[in-house]
Amino acid sequence: MHILVLHGPNLNLLGRREPEIYGSLSLVEIDQRLQAQATELAVQVTCRQSNHEGVLVDWIQQALGEFQGLLINPGAYTHTSLAIADAIRGTGLPTVEVHLSNIYARENYRHHSWIAPVAIGQISGLGGASYRWGLAALVQYCQEHQSRKLS
Amino acid sequence: MHILVLHGPNLNLLGRREPEIYGSLSLVEIDQRLQAQATELAVQVTCRQSNHEGVLVDWIQQALGEFQGLLINPGAYTHTSLAIADAIRGTGLPTVEVHLSNIYARENYRHHSWIAPVAIGQISGLGGASYRWGLAALVQYCQEHQSRKLS
Amino acid sequence: MHILVLHGPNLNLLGRREPEIYGSLSLVEIDQRLQAQATELAVQVTCRQSNHEGVLVDWIQQALGEFQGLLINPGAYTHTSLAIADAIRGTGLPTVEVHLSNIYARENYRHHSWIAPVAIGQISGLGGASYRWGLAALVQYCQEHQSRKLS
Amino acid sequence: MHILVLHGPNLNLLGRREPEIYGSLSLVEIDQRLQAQATELAVQVTCRQSNHEGVLVDWIQQALGEFQGLLINPGAYTHTSLAIADAIRGTGLPTVEVHLSNIYARENYRHHSWIAPVAIGQISGLGGASYRWGLAALVQYCQEHQSRKLS
Amino acid sequence: MHILVLHGPNLNLLGRREPEIYGSLSLVEIDQRLQAQATELAVQVTCRQSNHEGVLVDWIQQALGEFQGLLINPGAYTHTSLAIADAIRGTGLPTVEVHLSNIYARENYRHHSWIAPVAIGQISGLGGASYRWGLAALVQYCQEHQSRKLS
Amino acid sequence: MHILVLHGPNLNLLGRREPEIYGSLSLVEIDQRLQAQATELAVQVTCRQSNHEGVLVDWIQQALGEFQGLLINPGAYTHTSLAIADAIRGTGLPTVEVHLSNIYARENYRHHSWIAPVAIGQISGLGGASYRWGLAALVQYCQEHQSRKLS
Amino acid sequence: MHILVLHGPNLNLLGRREPEIYGSLSLVEIDQRLQAQATELAVQVTCRQSNHEGVLVDWIQQALGEFQGLLINPGAYTHTSLAIADAIRGTGLPTVEVHLSNIYARENYRHHSWIAPVAIGQISGLGGASYRWGLAALVQYCQEHQSRKLS
Amino acid sequence: MHILVLHGPNLNLLGRREPEIYGSLSLVEIDQRLQAQATELAVQVTCRQSNHEGVLVDWIQQALGEFQGLLINPGAYTHTSLAIADAIRGTGLPTVEVHLSNIYARENYRHHSWIAPVAIGQISGLGGASYRWGLAALVQYCQEHQSRKLS
Amino acid sequence: MHILVLHGPNLNLLGRREPEIYGSLSLVEIDQRLQAQATELAVQVTCRQSNHEGVLVDWIQQALGEFQGLLINPGAYTHTSLAIADAIRGTGLPTVEVHLSNIYARENYRHHSWIAPVAIGQISGLGGASYRWGLAALVQYCQEHQSRKLS
Amino acid sequence: MHILVLHGPNLNLLGRREPEIYGSLSLVEIDQRLQAQATELAVQVTCRQSNHEGVLVDWIQQALGEFQGLLINPGAYTHTSLAIADAIRGTGLPTVEVHLSNIYARENYRHHSWIAPVAIGQISGLGGASYRWGLAALVQYCQEHQSRKLS
Amino acid sequence: MHILVLHGPNLNLLGRREPEIYGSLSLVEIDQRLQAQATELAVQVTCRQSNHEGVLVDWIQQALGEFQGLLINPGAYTHTSLAIADAIRGTGLPTVEVHLSNIYARENYRHHSWIAPVAIGQISGLGGASYRWGLAALVQYCQEHQSRKLS
Amino acid sequence: MHILVLHGPNLNLLGRREPEIYGSLSLVEIDQRLQAQATELAVQVTCRQSNHEGVLVDWIQQALGEFQGLLINPGAYTHTSLAIADAIRGTGLPTVEVHLSNIYARENYRHHSWIAPVAIGQISGLGGASYRWGLAALVQYCQEHQSRKLS
Repeated sequence: MHILVLHGPNLNLLGRREPEIYGSLSLVEIDQRLQAQATELAVQVTCRQSNHEGVLVDWIQQALGEFQGLLINPGAYTHTSLAIADAIRGTGLPTVEVHLSNIYARENYRHHSWIAPVAIGQISGLGGASYRWGLAALVQYCQEHQSRKLS
Repeated sequence: MHILVLHGPNLNLLGRREPEIYGSLSLVEIDQRLQAQATELAVQVTCRQSNHEGVLVDWIQQALGEFQGLLINPGAYTHTSLAIADAIRGTGLPTVEVHLSNIYARENYRHHSWIAPVAIGQISGLGGASYRWGLAALVQYCQEHQSRKLS
Repeated sequence: MHILVLHGPNLNLLGRREPEIYGSLSLVEIDQRLQAQATELAVQVTCRQSNHEGVLVDWIQQALGEFQGLLINPGAYTHTSLAIADAIRGTGLPTVEVHLSNIYARENYRHHSWIAPVAIGQISGLGGASYRWGLAALVQYCQEHQSRKLS
Repeated sequence: MHILVLHGPNLNLLGRREPEIYGSLSLVEIDQRLQAQATELAVQVTCRQSNHEGVLVDWIQQALGEFQGLLINPGAYTHTSLAIADAIRGTGLPTVEVHLSNIYARENYRHHSWIAPVAIGQISGLGGASYRWGLAALVQYCQEHQSRKLS
Repeated sequence: MHILVLHGPNLNLLGRREPEIYGSLSLVEIDQRLQAQATELAVQVTCRQSNHEGVLVDWIQQALGEFQGLLINPGAYTHTSLAIADAIRGTGLPTVEVHLSNIYARENYRHHSWIAPVAIGQISGLGGASYRWGLAALVQYCQEHQSRKLS
Repeated sequence: MHILVLHGPNLNLLGRREPEIYGSLSLVEIDQRLQAQATELAVQVTCRQSNHEGVLVDWIQQALGEFQGLLINPGAYTHTSLAIADAIRGTGLPTVEVHLSNIYARENYRHHSWIAPVAIGQISGLGGASYRWGLAALVQYCQEHQSRKLS
Repeated sequence: MHILVLHGPNLNLLGRREPEIYGSLSLVEIDQRLQAQATELAVQVTCRQSNHEGVLVDWIQQALGEFQGLLINPGAYTHTSLAIADAIRGTGLPTVEVHLSNIYARENYRHHSWIAPVAIGQISGLGGASYRWGLAALVQYCQEHQSRKLS
Repeated sequence: MHILVLHGPNLNLLGRREPEIYGSLSLVEIDQRLQAQATELAVQVTCRQSNHEGVLVDWIQQALGEFQGLLINPGAYTHTSLAIADAIRGTGLPTVEVHLSNIYARENYRHHSWIAPVAIGQISGLGGASYRWGLAALVQYCQEHQSRKLS
Repeated sequence: MHILVLHGPNLNLLGRREPEIYGSLSLVEIDQRLQAQATELAVQVTCRQSNHEGVLVDWIQQALGEFQGLLINPGAYTHTSLAIADAIRGTGLPTVEVHLSNIYARENYRHHSWIAPVAIGQISGLGGASYRWGLAALVQYCQEHQSRKLS
Repeated sequence: MHILVLHGPNLNLLGRREPEIYGSLSLVEIDQRLQAQATELAVQVTCRQSNHEGVLVDWIQQALGEFQGLLINPGAYTHTSLAIADAIRGTGLPTVEVHLSNIYARENYRHHSWIAPVAIGQISGLGGASYRWGLAALVQYCQEHQSRKLS
Repeated sequence: MHILVLHGPNLNLLGRREPEIYGSLSLVEIDQRLQAQATELAVQVTCRQSNHEGVLVDWIQQALGEFQGLLINPGAYTHTSLAIADAIRGTGLPTVEVHLSNIYARENYRHHSWIAPVAIGQISGLGGASYRWGLAALVQYCQEHQSRKLS
Repeated sequence: MHILVLHGPNLNLLGRREPEIYGSLSLVEIDQRLQAQATELAVQVTCRQSNHEGVLVDWIQQALGEFQGLLINPGAYTHTSLAIADAIRGTGLPTVEVHLSNIYARENYRHHSWIAPVAIGQISGLGGASYRWGLAALVQYCQEHQSRKLS
């Protein structure tokens, strides 16, 4: 099983800025932890980051056939990108949406997610652990659905 | 460490009704799984369910001193109870909010949570696994903050 | 056939206060009339009143197996209780919603009902007769659906 | 006592189209049942249908003196016609509003009724029985008010 | 003259939590001060607190005959409970609404009160003194209206 | 000069119903007064009333060539008919809108007029005098514009 | 009979600026025409203009006893001054509101008038004639009400 | 194959008024072009215009059995008539909605169409060509669905 | 200690008009009572009234240094004046806002106060007693804060 | 004449996913049909697809001088991209907007188009035929305007 | 060239209060700097401050003929005064609007300006420099437009 | 000191299109003027334009360390890009937002800026001079803050 991990705009700044909101982990450390966790779970993960809405859409489309699930932190595009939501809906890739900060405890315009209605579920506010539980949940979901298809 | 698990209104119907939305797990099974997981995590959990907003507020208040964290699925009160939110804010109990179904893929009036802004984070849409990852996340959070206080 | 009749908050004040809105019938008289009508219809009715949202949710849940239909005047909870609506949806109990006064001729905040979308239908504004026609309609509905299951 | 029954736009299609929403009764059958019920109640009913807002307003105005009550299913004009509401208010004819389907379980724009605030009451969602209980309620209301005038 | 003092949800936490918002007075101290003030005013007060909307409604209804006025701090139910407002309107009990904090200087959702339109008046933001002036005002109001009835 | 006077739905009820809002003048009397005033002003008026939105649109269209101005009280269609507004805009007929009652002192939904933006002006709340000043204003407007074309 | 005519802010610019909206009449000419018309009607008028909301409120209050009616073009204060509306309501002075331009054919924020609900009526869009018909209507209204008091 | 073409209110004014918005084609010319196109497509068209909402509803209902498709320009009723939309939904007649002008480049209140959700599709802004492509699209749609039924 | 009492627009009409809303006390009587109460409290009060927003702003600014607290009934400016709120915020003068009538039981547009968020607290609906308790509360507040500065 | 055809985000998925909404045509087939139609119409078309808002803006700008018209299906950017709308407005390129599905029969957020106000017209809901009629309409529009410039 | 500089309500408090928002410059210093800058630019400036909306309107009107441009910081009237905006529009005086603080980073009600649509431009958030660049921009604008008139 | 100047989508069209809104300056000329001004101010500027939201985000991130300030005209992304705002907030780069046209005198959807709350200030409507004063203001701001750090 191969999982695609996508980080949206400005997440490459992690650890350097606004640690009171996003914590002190860098994106590299988050990716390393996800790789370690993947090894434990006996799955493969590929991590990518982009500030470009179009690139994120491209990657989601190209994931078809190559990846079995998508773990995504869409950053600011959570709140403005219908195109990413349409790509997830269009490809049908099982998706878990994660956020480092609790988006419901921040500005009103961060309370609405275009992605949430097309995802399996959403994890918000647990810092780096949002990714951890998100990956675990996604892998479990994919395994359960895969085994159903086999049986 | 002792964690209080609260289930809000109608969650005692789980497994009997609307399994296409809420899954086929009963509340008893969810509680058993949480107990098993608690043993693995070397913590203690106490699970309670009520259809009464006031009872939920009472329990949250009484948790002070006895419990170190709160895992709550507020059910319909997610969307209508400021009193429960005020109780969480007032007691300062570390709280993770969980939902079996993806509330953002359902009716509009289920998209707003009074609880989310006073919780550490929210996990939505992962079925029974929402509770699993919620408990894991809450215990980890409490351990990190406890050890900080000790050092 | 056994029908549960639920009266929501402040309906126990009926007849004593604001008769220009709610009429001069007391709740006891309404219940007596419903009992008489039930005898005519050869069904059984049990009438209860509570000011507690949670108690109403409890009663709706407990009705499963014991009652075949629900006649409810949710009072103020019509406009604020998603938990009661979820209980009706969750138990699948055939439900008719009734109001003594015409809620659409009163304050704007009384025009929205959480209950109406999960009920078979709603009767509003006919005074004590709202209950009468509501019971008749509910019994007829249940009989038609029961006979269908039998055939 | 003479009751005017008005059916609004598209109700003449009843029984032929969308039976999953409106049931399989034709308008002719509804009218026949109302006639039979009228005989039982010892009153007279006259049933009319029009797709024209203006015709419905004309009929309501002309009812003064000839009819003692109005039973109306305004169809789509429920949601767009202030002119019909003004006609009812202007003539002061006792009116009961009925709907075959539960308008509160359908599209948002069907939740608001211009007619409800000027009617005695509203019955919604009981299929053909909405008319039945509506007529019964209207006749009872008119008799009570008539006898009061006599006493 | 006997005045009922009702404290809504979470007010039993007073003095222990969030003193920067609610002050450092405990609810016991507030009640003691009200008792002392009652003695000065030669009236009797009975103080109760509940986290249950339904219990508050019950108490308001039971106040009829026993109490001549109601001093209420409805806490979070200020903003979500139409049932409490209906109980006050239904019983006709002269009511003064008080708030420790200035609800208009806090979150938007605390600016709307269901209770205010059915109260004589509202006092907000004066800390423990809100209760003090509220009791004084309520007693004066009741005395003026009582003496009018006598004359 | 020939002026068309149009009365919208329910204005034929004038004098018989709700005199506290619309005054005690009948429509016949209003038309007689307008005829008398027309004689004084040395113009001709033709008065018509309809409850049909479509008939009002027809009449406005047919006025082209035959009439030089339109005095209209659109009744309830003031607030719901874009078709009448489009007819006035489409024909370019100089139009004065009048209302017997002060529509801005009534229900909110009577505060918006589809007609006002396509009229020269609007007169509201002066009872029968609204028509009087409306006719005077319309005639003066037409004379000024006619004389300009001649010069 | 003595009528107070008040012109609100910027009306002293009339004739000099934006004649495409407000026409080419100066305020002096409007006042002269009103004086001439007053002579014809055998009443007295006093005309004043101010850019100050407070001054307009002062004048309305001082009109009590001295004037029998108020003709007001509140200019921009139409849309922002509750204080002027309260002054009219408070003094009970019979008031007609006039506007040179058709405020309903202009920007949205000019469609709402604070003054209209407390005026007898409103005349909008007839240029200088708005004042003319407004004065005539006001005088007629006052004469009718005065004679009623006498009889 | 027989297609019904309906033109809503004020479309009979085409070519005479507001050519900068609606173009210089008259309705007769539009109908002639549609007839010519129909001959080319080997189908039959019948064109009708009415200013009456009710007449349009009648015609749509009567089309059942006689016509296989509906091409409609609902004019102002696009934005106010739920009754026409219900008629289309109720009859299930395949419908294409057309507009001469680009309704999305005009006033806000012309951006919402009651008809669009019940039509196959909508063509807006292409002037007379809107009808041309609309007819072509409707015929093609009907042929494809007919042939499917045959195979 | 010297307290400034400001009365906003139209409050000089008190006692003469609309006594059913504002009571029968004149402003002079209110001021006399405040003076008497001030003597009891051993403080000094200066009372002023103005219909001018700008004058009220001037007075608040000039109060710096001369007065230790502000008791204000802003009248209609409660709902429209950000300038007065900015003056209070800018000067930092401890302020209590009072209203004779219960503004929350009146028109919707009287439910929002620009002043409340910058005041210590608000007292509404207690008639002349609103001022009484307002002065008492303000003096107490100032004394407590003054003594803190001294200690 | 050279027409640019732009397909927005996720349209490259056509035919592979969600055929119940978007039909079974692939984007390659749509482009082949457009090429064939272009040959018939004796014009040239160039078809491009991108998931990048910025790339679409670039292409529209670069079209100036090279292309005479734009046929665009902006996909999800229809509802979120003001930049594309500004590019069309800024270049002044004649544009027809097309949609395969009926965007007005889908989710609310698909009812608003940023592109429609700057396009000549919009065709929605006709499946692959939306492109066909769109190209025909665009070519006709360009030819008519070109010939006008020549004459 | 003579420029009028107007400071709105509470700006005379500058430097004394809330320096964290408005900076530590006093209004006198701002005016001195503007005078110095005017000398450099070889123009004349006159600076005035008022807390009175009406006075600001008066000054803008009186500026005609005497001043060639207006530099205005309308303070709180930015958000509530249509009268000032109408005065600027009515006199046609070239106007630049300035704000010391960034009004878009403050409360929502400070994001809307009545003045901005009638100004040439707006400068916000640059502290005392807002005035500096505002004056420079205004003078440049006036010189360019003056020289155009001359050529 | 090195300042980054970013121009958003469609600004490369400047001078060629819609000069009535954006003026006749080309982007090259604006950049040349900024370079000249930079020389005068003894700072360095680098100017870039992109139609890609993602590219703008990339550039802002890369500016860290290399540039001391950001002058940005975000074009259409002003109103739709939270990602750019997050980049500015995330990097903490001192930013001034500029617009050639007065965005507050244009369409409503141009009145809201995502960028303004994270900028120091905003300059709008001064044509090419918006950039000029924006650069001057930004340089001054950076120098003041730099010198503070040094002292």
